[in-house]
Amino acid sequence: MPFKQIFRVHWVDTDLAGVMHFTNFLRYFEACEEEFYRSISLPFNAIREKYGIMLPRVEAHCQYKAACRFDDFIEVTLRVREVSEKTVTYDFQMIRQHDRKLAAEGSMKCIAVNSEWKAVSLPPELAKSLRENGA
Amino acid sequence: MPFKQIFRVHWVDTDLAGVMHFTNFLRYFEACEEEFYRSISLPFNAIREKYGIMLPRVEAHCQYKAACRFDDFIEVTLRVREVSEKTVTYDFQMIRQHDRKLAAEGSMKCIAVNSEWKAVSLPPELAKSLRENGA
Amino acid sequence: MPFKQIFRVHWVDTDLAGVMHFTNFLRYFEACEEEFYRSISLPFNAIREKYGIMLPRVEAHCQYKAACRFDDFIEVTLRVREVSEKTVTYDFQMIRQHDRKLAAEGSMKCIAVNSEWKAVSLPPELAKSLRENGA
Amino acid sequence: MPFKQIFRVHWVDTDLAGVMHFTNFLRYFEACEEEFYRSISLPFNAIREKYGIMLPRVEAHCQYKAACRFDDFIEVTLRVREVSEKTVTYDFQMIRQHDRKLAAEGSMKCIAVNSEWKAVSLPPELAKSLRENGA
Repeated sequence: MPFKQIFRVHWVDTDLAGVMHFTNFLRYFEACEEEFYRSISLPFNAIREKYGIMLPRVEAHCQYKAACRFDDFIEVTLRVREVSEKTVTYDFQMIRQHDRKLAAEGSMKCIAVNSEWKAVSLPPELAKSLRENGA
Repeated sequence: MPFKQIFRVHWVDTDLAGVMHFTNFLRYFEACEEEFYRSISLPFNAIREKYGIMLPRVEAHCQYKAACRFDDFIEVTLRVREVSEKTVTYDFQMIRQHDRKLAAEGSMKCIAVNSEWKAVSLPPELAKSLRENGA
Repeated sequence: MPFKQIFRVHWVDTDLAGVMHFTNFLRYFEACEEEFYRSISLPFNAIREKYGIMLPRVEAHCQYKAACRFDDFIEVTLRVREVSEKTVTYDFQMIRQHDRKLAAEGSMKCIAVNSEWKAVSLPPELAKSLRENGA
Repeated sequence: MPFKQIFRVHWVDTDLAGVMHFTNFLRYFEACEEEFYRSISLPFNAIREKYGIMLPRVEAHCQYKAACRFDDFIEVTLRVREVSEKTVTYDFQMIRQHDRKLAAEGSMKCIAVNSEWKAVSLPPELAKSLRENGA
């Protein structure tokens, strides 16, 4: 089941075109990802402390479909697409709540690295949890 | 010839992992794009005033290859990959200056829209200038 | 009665010192202000459309008392301190929820301006509402 | 002699009011501060590595005098106002280059802390350098 989170577009998220800046879509994708990890009881910090790893992005992609404006409620949906030995890939969708329009679709791929930024295997427990919650 | 611009990673660009946040790579791509338009005498504002159009992104993509840290000089290179009737697509590269490592590669696709956010043709003069400078 | 709003510190809010960047405290003050205006049925956009005015800051001040970290819940409290003919001044407090420590205290002063950025009187209805909700 | 640094307002710095967001003035103050420390051969990172200290803000203040817009060149001036045992206070000014208008004035006070965020004395060498360059 996809994981869903609702946010509100802040004034600071907008630019002089009167719409949310394109990089802020990705910031809300990440904010959704943060909540997703909390929902499986593994917030980023816990992952760092428990397993000694971090999950930096190796790829980010976004297609912009409709502008989001100040005060808009936006629904971000995260779906775990793939869990490989060292990486996890999510798909994201952003919906404008007031008209149910798809605002953006994107994906991010993260890789497990240790404290020296060397790629390492995902801890089995984490990989399992990601797989189960990404069905 | 590609267009090149050098930036310096600021403290605020970093996050608690000690590296530049992944969305800031895209902000520096955009900063390079801004300078590119100035270099062809068509800053974003002039485009808006002269042609009544804006060029919002419809797609952004980035592959992260190496972390950038506070104080690093980063070289961003923009190359116009394609100019279609209504869109322009650029390729970006980011190099860490101190070790010449490729930090990131990406692309952005922009579409011409009028003041009502309807897609319109690129003004011929602008399309021509983009093509000439993207060879 | 002061207006209170709870936020969560995002990864992107932090910097390489491992704490929330000092400018993001002010961004959360503003996010609280946005909700406050919604709570009195006058979101920033409505103010702009209804009265033709905006309320840019003429002054911002913040004292930092304790660091906020990723994942922290932060409580921001807004109190309307003073409403003059053309300005409104708020006091803010930020509390870290987990240990009830005061993280920051600050203030912002805003001035009513028309679409040409000329200072104008606050609409009486808005001034009244701010005064009533700032007692 | 005050330390001066020139920046250019980026698209992402603006908000839907068409002007630079109020928190970005402070980000440019900090960007100027970063360059100042480099100019005295003590970039933030060096301070951390050499002395084991950081210099987080305990106070920030800004008065906004004139809006800055996309493409504007802005001149930021830093002056060391006071160096005490544990703190350093700077004054900032921001000038819009095209009309020499004062855009903002502000100050920031920083305190030396060790790696446990305990306040400590400024290293004498650093204090001396700040005093000499703040005359």
